[in-house]
Amino acid sequence: MTTFLSTAASAAQQASPRQASPPQVPPRLPVKLPVELALAADRHAELPLTEQIAAQLRDVLTGGRLAAGERLPSTRALAAALGVSRTVVTAAYTQLFAEGWLEGRHGSGTYVAPGAVAPLGAGAAPAPVAAGPGPGPASPAPPLPPVPAATATLAAGPRAAWLQPDPVPPVNLQPGIPWQAGIDPAAWRRAWRHAGTEPVSAQPDPRGHPALREALTGYLRRSRGVCVTADQILATRGVSAGLGLVTAALLRPGDRVGVEEPGYQAARAVFASRGARLVPCRVDGDGLVVDKLPDDLRLVYTTPAHQYPLGGRLPVPRRQALATWARSTGALIVEDDYDGEFRYDVAPLPTLFGLDPDVVIYLGTTSKTLTPTLGAGWLVARPDLIPALAAAAVDLGERVSGPVQHAVTELLASGELERHVRRMRHEYARRRAVMVTALAGRLTGDTAGMHMVMELPPGTATAVAAAARERGVEVATLDRYFGGPPTLEGLMLGYGAADLAAVSRGCQVIAEILAGLPGTRGAGAPR
Amino acid sequence: MTTFLSTAASAAQQASPRQASPPQVPPRLPVKLPVELALAADRHAELPLTEQIAAQLRDVLTGGRLAAGERLPSTRALAAALGVSRTVVTAAYTQLFAEGWLEGRHGSGTYVAPGAVAPLGAGAAPAPVAAGPGPGPASPAPPLPPVPAATATLAAGPRAAWLQPDPVPPVNLQPGIPWQAGIDPAAWRRAWRHAGTEPVSAQPDPRGHPALREALTGYLRRSRGVCVTADQILATRGVSAGLGLVTAALLRPGDRVGVEEPGYQAARAVFASRGARLVPCRVDGDGLVVDKLPDDLRLVYTTPAHQYPLGGRLPVPRRQALATWARSTGALIVEDDYDGEFRYDVAPLPTLFGLDPDVVIYLGTTSKTLTPTLGAGWLVARPDLIPALAAAAVDLGERVSGPVQHAVTELLASGELERHVRRMRHEYARRRAVMVTALAGRLTGDTAGMHMVMELPPGTATAVAAAARERGVEVATLDRYFGGPPTLEGLMLGYGAADLAAVSRGCQVIAEILAGLPGTRGAGAPR
Repeated sequence: MTTFLSTAASAAQQASPRQASPPQVPPRLPVKLPVELALAADRHAELPLTEQIAAQLRDVLTGGRLAAGERLPSTRALAAALGVSRTVVTAAYTQLFAEGWLEGRHGSGTYVAPGAVAPLGAGAAPAPVAAGPGPGPASPAPPLPPVPAATATLAAGPRAAWLQPDPVPPVNLQPGIPWQAGIDPAAWRRAWRHAGTEPVSAQPDPRGHPALREALTGYLRRSRGVCVTADQILATRGVSAGLGLVTAALLRPGDRVGVEEPGYQAARAVFASRGARLVPCRVDGDGLVVDKLPDDLRLVYTTPAHQYPLGGRLPVPRRQALATWARSTGALIVEDDYDGEFRYDVAPLPTLFGLDPDVVIYLGTTSKTLTPTLGAGWLVARPDLIPALAAAAVDLGERVSGPVQHAVTELLASGELERHVRRMRHEYARRRAVMVTALAGRLTGDTAGMHMVMELPPGTATAVAAAARERGVEVATLDRYFGGPPTLEGLMLGYGAADLAAVSRGCQVIAEILAGLPGTRGAGAPR
Repeated sequence: MTTFLSTAASAAQQASPRQASPPQVPPRLPVKLPVELALAADRHAELPLTEQIAAQLRDVLTGGRLAAGERLPSTRALAAALGVSRTVVTAAYTQLFAEGWLEGRHGSGTYVAPGAVAPLGAGAAPAPVAAGPGPGPASPAPPLPPVPAATATLAAGPRAAWLQPDPVPPVNLQPGIPWQAGIDPAAWRRAWRHAGTEPVSAQPDPRGHPALREALTGYLRRSRGVCVTADQILATRGVSAGLGLVTAALLRPGDRVGVEEPGYQAARAVFASRGARLVPCRVDGDGLVVDKLPDDLRLVYTTPAHQYPLGGRLPVPRRQALATWARSTGALIVEDDYDGEFRYDVAPLPTLFGLDPDVVIYLGTTSKTLTPTLGAGWLVARPDLIPALAAAAVDLGERVSGPVQHAVTELLASGELERHVRRMRHEYARRRAVMVTALAGRLTGDTAGMHMVMELPPGTATAVAAAARERGVEVATLDRYFGGPPTLEGLMLGYGAADLAAVSRGCQVIAEILAGLPGTRGAGAPR
């Protein structure tokens, strides 16, 4: 059904006698809207109801039909008007909240975030906006979804002896290492058996096997909403290899490249080793600070889904401002979506690439979803950039092993990679909940990926890490992610490499160390 | 048994009545030697008799116990004195001949090559010598070994349908592509099945899996005479990846790097893309011209076993001079042994690395022996260089896929790679013989690898290549291997990608094109 619904109507509805239960929010002065929201929900469409509603609300917002600060209908009212369950509408709101379109608190109304939309009447095309403060990590996130115990046990439980990882420290809380013992051994064996029976290609396509790129179009569409053809995809060995190709193919020596500060060390190393000049770009809790970017960058490297290392998720206003900046300066944006598959509160965020495919090069990898030892990833770009990147791959002898391509194709085509991501998402959500509980109030970093950040008072991080190591708990300190002098001190706490019990044990050790450290308060009680 | 034998004694023996058959060479004036040759042959030793004798003769030559121009005992005399078959001694002499130690013609005596050894009395340590004219490609090579028909048929014959290569031009004579249809499908399947059942390593050794490096020590010793421990080996994805690591770990931006001119384009591309300044170094029919090297190079890249593209094999005097130059200037030598496994007249040549492991970094690969799609190779260096190279691999995200490492380990440990190399050596020898016959007198390039070079008059190479392509024969022109203006014109004719019949057909087409080309003589009759 289709409904024309204004926020005024919504406010009225909330207080109407048709509502069986009393309104949960106090009545507010209705906000007058110049246009009505035309929303529809179609139960017979392929797209789930939540995504239908979220997509239409995005259109409303980009179309300027709601201004910053305006209030949205309550979930209850919109659900009633559309004839769908309130859960569906809440999920759509939560998604837009996470994307930075909306702000506010559950229970006191939902509002359009400042800077998220164009001025009223600006038409359907998104206009450049100043970067405003998004909800950021400080905003309240919905509680973690309940995890089916059986699935989580399957993913985290003991595996066949051959899948036991190498000897590691008793508790490894270093970031960036996925749970490789969770890989299904039968599916893994099938993938490599398949690889061994595929033809040895005498003259392989330097962009990657056609079957792999075809399988990736489906994976990218389903898992990240990236809709491209196989001609826009280049198979890579992972993010670093993709960055190497971008640098070799699209930059000249001495070109200025913006990198997040703090940021991913390997990205800095790859750019620098190929002769680019690094320009550190400031990062805050929301990710890259976009309004401070110099105009003379040839390229900016960013991790919008989950800033590495600080964990922020780039809000929509900054994303729009970043794309506008790139268009006006002629720079390219490289979007490193290294762990965009893992979010625990809402569906994964849309990509920067989806926002403006002309100025963004998108990099994905199996290093976090599956294992870094596989050495497989992908680069997505507008079609005219692919030939130069493929030529650079040929020039530099940069290719993905043929059997690795066959194995990944099999993992994608059989749906195993997506099943594995789902299992791991549940597993990581449980570990993350344990960590949040054990180190209550101390952690920042968005509800994504497989690590969190603990800020510490100046001069303490190295000592805390050393004390933890002394007690068998390996953590990383933040300083290594700075190209220049660190402006922030703290720990990176990963929950990919340690199982649930080890995460709990490791966090307990850290809480005890912090309790004994002068100048820091002890870890709080479980929330 | 051990024998003390002087060349004077040998000459006397040749004419002695103890010889049942009449001497095959006319008696010559005995050359007087200041010392006697102490040689021994031990049938119970692990080393084959031929290699025992060759090694001892090398000691005699490097020790200065024979001077340039001096004559060696005849094979018959030495065989009789050692109590071994004449075939054994002939093989040892042929090996030393190919290495550039000896010169002369079969049937008229064998002599120490000029410049190959230190002045008399210089002691056991090899002294610097001026680069003298080695035997070079112009020297008569022994005839190709007879090829067991059954083996060659096995390697070249039709394979299971899944191993058919991708569609290629009717006759592909481009260089650098091995015969991938010759890979044994059962062994290939076994290797990948093995890879799929090995544990997924959570924290793999950045130098490569220990089992792989251990298996490589045996392979390198047996196939290339490189005797090292696993701690001196770094697993790579191939030569280009190895060069990338060397540049990133051991060079500073702007360092001057010597590259062969003409030379391997990918090496130039890798060095340049990482900020090195390329210094072209002249190459002649014997390989790198060593006495012209500037003193300010930080590194020189060379292909001593089979210069790419011209095909020369660096003679011993130049090898010694190169090592001496590196020691005196503090430069490193990078030895690219891309196809050192393939020689058709004698056993593979010893490596530069074996001559002076302190100043040489050795690079090997499976790209020519097996297939470039595998993406596996190795770097060998003195132990103190390995940590920096491994650290660069970590920094740059440069790693060999874990399953690829497992598969290569299996191919090495099972002996399959060596069996495959033997089969391919026979197969390539047959194709090479067909090419030499069809284009008699026009080809240069040493009797190694899987391509030859055809020099052409100025202004004709592109037209000949285009005419060949018109008739379905793909060849490469030499110009692409020059970093600067080409000083030589010609074709690269590979026999790796085309089977015997196709090589024959392709050469016939080229001979016909040349016959019709003004300014060139037609292809000669079969030798």
